[in-house]
Amino acid sequence: MGVILSGGAQRRSRRTSGASAVEGQLREEDVVAAIASIAGDRLQRRIVLGIGDDAALWQPSRSHRSAITTDMLVEGVHFTRETMTLEDAGWRAMTANASDLAAMGARPLLATVALGVPAEYALEEVRELYGGLAAAAASVGMSIVGGDLSRAPVLTIAITAVGEVRPSNLKTRAGARPGAVVAVTGDLGAARAGLDVATNRVALHSEHSAIALRAFRHPEARVAEGRFFAASANVQAMMDVSDGLSTDLHRLSIASACGAIVETVPVSAAAREAAMQTGEDPERYALAGGEDFELLVAIGPRAFAHLSRRFAARFNRPLHRVGVLRAGAGIQFRGEPLTPTGWDHFLTSS
Amino acid sequence: MGVILSGGAQRRSRRTSGASAVEGQLREEDVVAAIASIAGDRLQRRIVLGIGDDAALWQPSRSHRSAITTDMLVEGVHFTRETMTLEDAGWRAMTANASDLAAMGARPLLATVALGVPAEYALEEVRELYGGLAAAAASVGMSIVGGDLSRAPVLTIAITAVGEVRPSNLKTRAGARPGAVVAVTGDLGAARAGLDVATNRVALHSEHSAIALRAFRHPEARVAEGRFFAASANVQAMMDVSDGLSTDLHRLSIASACGAIVETVPVSAAAREAAMQTGEDPERYALAGGEDFELLVAIGPRAFAHLSRRFAARFNRPLHRVGVLRAGAGIQFRGEPLTPTGWDHFLTSS
Repeated sequence: MGVILSGGAQRRSRRTSGASAVEGQLREEDVVAAIASIAGDRLQRRIVLGIGDDAALWQPSRSHRSAITTDMLVEGVHFTRETMTLEDAGWRAMTANASDLAAMGARPLLATVALGVPAEYALEEVRELYGGLAAAAASVGMSIVGGDLSRAPVLTIAITAVGEVRPSNLKTRAGARPGAVVAVTGDLGAARAGLDVATNRVALHSEHSAIALRAFRHPEARVAEGRFFAASANVQAMMDVSDGLSTDLHRLSIASACGAIVETVPVSAAAREAAMQTGEDPERYALAGGEDFELLVAIGPRAFAHLSRRFAARFNRPLHRVGVLRAGAGIQFRGEPLTPTGWDHFLTSS
Repeated sequence: MGVILSGGAQRRSRRTSGASAVEGQLREEDVVAAIASIAGDRLQRRIVLGIGDDAALWQPSRSHRSAITTDMLVEGVHFTRETMTLEDAGWRAMTANASDLAAMGARPLLATVALGVPAEYALEEVRELYGGLAAAAASVGMSIVGGDLSRAPVLTIAITAVGEVRPSNLKTRAGARPGAVVAVTGDLGAARAGLDVATNRVALHSEHSAIALRAFRHPEARVAEGRFFAASANVQAMMDVSDGLSTDLHRLSIASACGAIVETVPVSAAAREAAMQTGEDPERYALAGGEDFELLVAIGPRAFAHLSRRFAARFNRPLHRVGVLRAGAGIQFRGEPLTPTGWDHFLTSS
């Protein structure tokens, strides 16, 4: 961090003379001031030094381990301005990071934000984006402590989030054993249906439309759910479903050296309605849709009934049983092998 | 972090069917495997979980505070492939982050790397870039513990680095008082001269040419120097010189609520030779050139002579006195006000 968000080293482009703004161009100091005013008042007690120096500082918990995760979102790859506002894009980007921390059982603590902003952007647009970032951070108790700011050909958002977890509560993708019940914290596919709504590919019943758009533009990280599972010794493995159930279940299975049998795919009602209109298989919305940010957990079989009752009582919604882990490798679904079919953005056209 | 570097949420582009690679395109799993093989074997003892899960984990020191910094480098803004190799670009990007930690007096511990890679890049190119990132991280004792990977229109490198510092040793930009001596850990302007060499704007004497190119392409973060100053109660403020001495001295002065008088600008001999050829003022190479990654320190006036002798004995090169802080505001240089004239990449053309 140069100033706050001042950008690192090696600016190779030619500078215009003096410190005055080029007509119609963003001035770094204005952007920084705008961002600092949004981020500044939300610092947690343990943040010793926030925005404004070479680095930010915090006092780590003595009894916890620290967790770190990073995600980069690129306009045209991960989002387009046609399908969501900049505030939504900021919210989603921060939520994706919080979700990764939730998946470890960690409590989110702080985040840094590196923004690449096209030259034609107005200060108001950066402020809008940052409003979404700050709101999502605050919603899970995270402080934005610093970042970087650069010009870039398309809007680029790179977030790093830090959280903390007790060593005894840590959950990873590994450690699940054959026989474990696989479950997710919510039904899946609504975010994908929301993309269909946002691109006018489908027109849903108003309640489904609102649910789908919210899942797509304003998802919630399952932080409380993650900490609930983290506290249970019967939860053998955990991760978030960010790339579609089939891809992410493959990852959990591989990390745990198991196979899996999928019995039921919990498809959101909004995704079912969207699938009816697009003619696609509704289960594909859940298996390959991605970005639902629910948690995928592997639970010891004898503990499942009790834990799912406790989950329902605590969170007012069901824990969805998806299937079971088995010895061996690969995922079976209705007697057929299920391949990973989530998003791989290195295999995309345009 | 999805897989390791698997990319966050919301991949909006259309996926090609199945998991096979599109002809000539990077496959995410190949990139991830290549990166993991470079990063994987350098984990520090305190890294509990590295690449491969939703987040990485470490055991923070109980007696230290944690420091975090982030920098984004964008091809065409911060570097071009015409002037340095991808390995150099990776080295520089990581060094910029390590330098920010050094400037707090912190010991670098770990880093995450979010890469935006254009579709036309080959796996070998990503590997080369990552080689530079990993080498620079290893050179200061940092482990790369994870990251993210996305397609992007131009190469985009967002790094976040975490370090640790004893509360008693922490140095910020604030806290310096009028009368303090301002000094830098090396002469300045060589990186800017290196850009001139790399773009064939100048042709330097071979020794100067090598020094300039090294400063530009392969700078070192002053981690040991930062910890040396951090241990001294007579060092009142510290930061790194990443945006040119005049800009960065302004920042330190403002943070410390002081003015400053610049007496001498320590210009690298390579920069002097380059300036002779370009007809520019050699001092501008040091004042506005940026990216030298030396440390700028404010030292109690009575301690300066002793501390600079100890510095010279320890690091085998002089500590350069630049000037003094004074009451008031603004920077004076030869009786004239010196304006901040470092790089502001929001004020750049192209």
